[in-house]
Amino acid sequence: MNEEKSTNCLRGLPDTVAFSPDGRALRILDQTRLPGDTVYLDLTEPEEIYEAIKSLRVRGAPAIGVAAAIGLYCAALRFGETDTTRFIEKLKMTADYINSSRPTAVNLSWALGSMVSCADPALGVEENIARLRAKAEELRDADIAACRAIGEYGLTLLHDGAGILTHCNAGHLATTRYGTALAPIHVGRERGMRFRVFCDETRPLLQGARLSAYELCMDGVDTTVICDNMASQVMKNGWVDAVIVGADRIAANGDTANKIGTSGLAILAKHYGIPFYVAVPYSTIDLATATGDDIVIEQRDPAEVSELWYKHRMTPEGVKIYNPAFDVTPAELITAFITDRGIVRPPYKEKLSELFG
Amino acid sequence: MNEEKSTNCLRGLPDTVAFSPDGRALRILDQTRLPGDTVYLDLTEPEEIYEAIKSLRVRGAPAIGVAAAIGLYCAALRFGETDTTRFIEKLKMTADYINSSRPTAVNLSWALGSMVSCADPALGVEENIARLRAKAEELRDADIAACRAIGEYGLTLLHDGAGILTHCNAGHLATTRYGTALAPIHVGRERGMRFRVFCDETRPLLQGARLSAYELCMDGVDTTVICDNMASQVMKNGWVDAVIVGADRIAANGDTANKIGTSGLAILAKHYGIPFYVAVPYSTIDLATATGDDIVIEQRDPAEVSELWYKHRMTPEGVKIYNPAFDVTPAELITAFITDRGIVRPPYKEKLSELFG
Repeated sequence: MNEEKSTNCLRGLPDTVAFSPDGRALRILDQTRLPGDTVYLDLTEPEEIYEAIKSLRVRGAPAIGVAAAIGLYCAALRFGETDTTRFIEKLKMTADYINSSRPTAVNLSWALGSMVSCADPALGVEENIARLRAKAEELRDADIAACRAIGEYGLTLLHDGAGILTHCNAGHLATTRYGTALAPIHVGRERGMRFRVFCDETRPLLQGARLSAYELCMDGVDTTVICDNMASQVMKNGWVDAVIVGADRIAANGDTANKIGTSGLAILAKHYGIPFYVAVPYSTIDLATATGDDIVIEQRDPAEVSELWYKHRMTPEGVKIYNPAFDVTPAELITAFITDRGIVRPPYKEKLSELFG
Repeated sequence: MNEEKSTNCLRGLPDTVAFSPDGRALRILDQTRLPGDTVYLDLTEPEEIYEAIKSLRVRGAPAIGVAAAIGLYCAALRFGETDTTRFIEKLKMTADYINSSRPTAVNLSWALGSMVSCADPALGVEENIARLRAKAEELRDADIAACRAIGEYGLTLLHDGAGILTHCNAGHLATTRYGTALAPIHVGRERGMRFRVFCDETRPLLQGARLSAYELCMDGVDTTVICDNMASQVMKNGWVDAVIVGADRIAANGDTANKIGTSGLAILAKHYGIPFYVAVPYSTIDLATATGDDIVIEQRDPAEVSELWYKHRMTPEGVKIYNPAFDVTPAELITAFITDRGIVRPPYKEKLSELFG
């Protein structure tokens, strides 16, 4: 029986993904119930873990990766196998199954691959279980450390009382702890700093209104939700000292793919003379992608736009709907990248590749 | 019995406000049922007309003004008065009552005032009824003529096949016929021209998704709804040849108050080198307002944002919500004004006041 030692970093909010107190289950905050209900689920069966990832109960690439690692370990605890070969066979099958829950999530397959690779056919089942536990803890701790580092570096760019505008949810809820774009705010809160944060609601799926607003309120931050089209007015009012967003992929030249709406925010920030920061673990930088033109924009289901949160049809029958999931913000609109290896300023082509040195 | 001679300008869509076929009722398209159901209501009682304006069954300043004028005439038909003094007394009381349905709508009180002023104590009731009918027709025809002129002038700025982006609903549904921002498109359609129109959904109340998309689809226009935060990507794709919006008030220097989100669109259009047009009857220009700084931004109910179309709460309890109804677009971001008295280009301070000469 392993007691879970990980402590809560945010006053109201435990880690997004964690071991359950008895160490035998994956504990997640069910994000499909937010912002109305704060419900934690303890999962042990591969089918439960698959369902939780597929139906977005846990979301955000880093959080999904750690959830899959802890989940695979907890599932392995219940294999009831004494033969190492059969144990590792089951481990691979279970990893493949969980990996199929969201086929395009890189962190998911990478975390599951790391888990499977650490199994050793020369060792017994008990030793392998201990190795899996250690690897899951390592992946979790690495995620927390990266987010913490982003928070520390980001904080050097902010003053007490700063007004910050953010988009979508690149926060605690998308990682194990702290988040990326919101990490500076949460780390600053630990030190008693105060911020005034504006959350774009982020149509169509409202991750800003539902998730960023939730985690910031839980951390005692002065939080205001706005519709995406209000950002210009909020900036004009002088309320925003910095825009901070996350990213899905950063090309070698600094062009940045992130949630749809990010490029528009960057253009507004430039117009109003407000710094625009992108906060990411350095692993989000893809040196194999030369520029943003090489990034394909995923098109999503029109019903996300036309059926408001799947409740009520708001557009006429037969109208077309354009629903890109992401856009690409040109590097020249980005003031700096806040990474776990430090702040990166232009020229990006040189400075980003130096992070990998 | 007056037969209604006004013809339908849009293939699928009669006038937004009109006399009923027997000439004795106000006929409106019930906009609260859009885009799902196309329902016309015939109204004769002051209470019905009041309710229709108050609950936004008819909306858009020009449409409200004409609806009130026709409605007041139809109500007067049923006064059952033979004494002119008592008839005019009832007319004033009824006008005051209808005017209280939306106290801040200037067109409403202006149209009702014009109706009451045309009544003549020296004439009999029958003659006064005829004068009221003529005045209501005059107000309706003036609205149609102004919108038609905006359409004709606007069309000189567009080519067949043009891509147009619009915001909110400054269309047929906001006026008697044609609209303002959408008038060039509807007039062009009469001539067989084709356009590709992108409608910002326009959070929080979704007038773009619900109303602009509806009337454009009914007119056979290639119409695509986007979330407000997708405008930057649509412009980057090269799909937009012009942005056209309406306005609530234009200051003497050209600063323009319009639906929240308009200023952000203007900044994006400038960034991408796309012309940005504001289409209005010249009466929207308020020479008594020097600049946009003199325009107060109305704040609206946070529930418009937090409760998606009043169905489902999407933000955490206790979070703040900023919900400005309008923003002000600086004159320097506006390429030209499209008015019923012609196209106006900078310098606006001089050129706008010349319209009144």
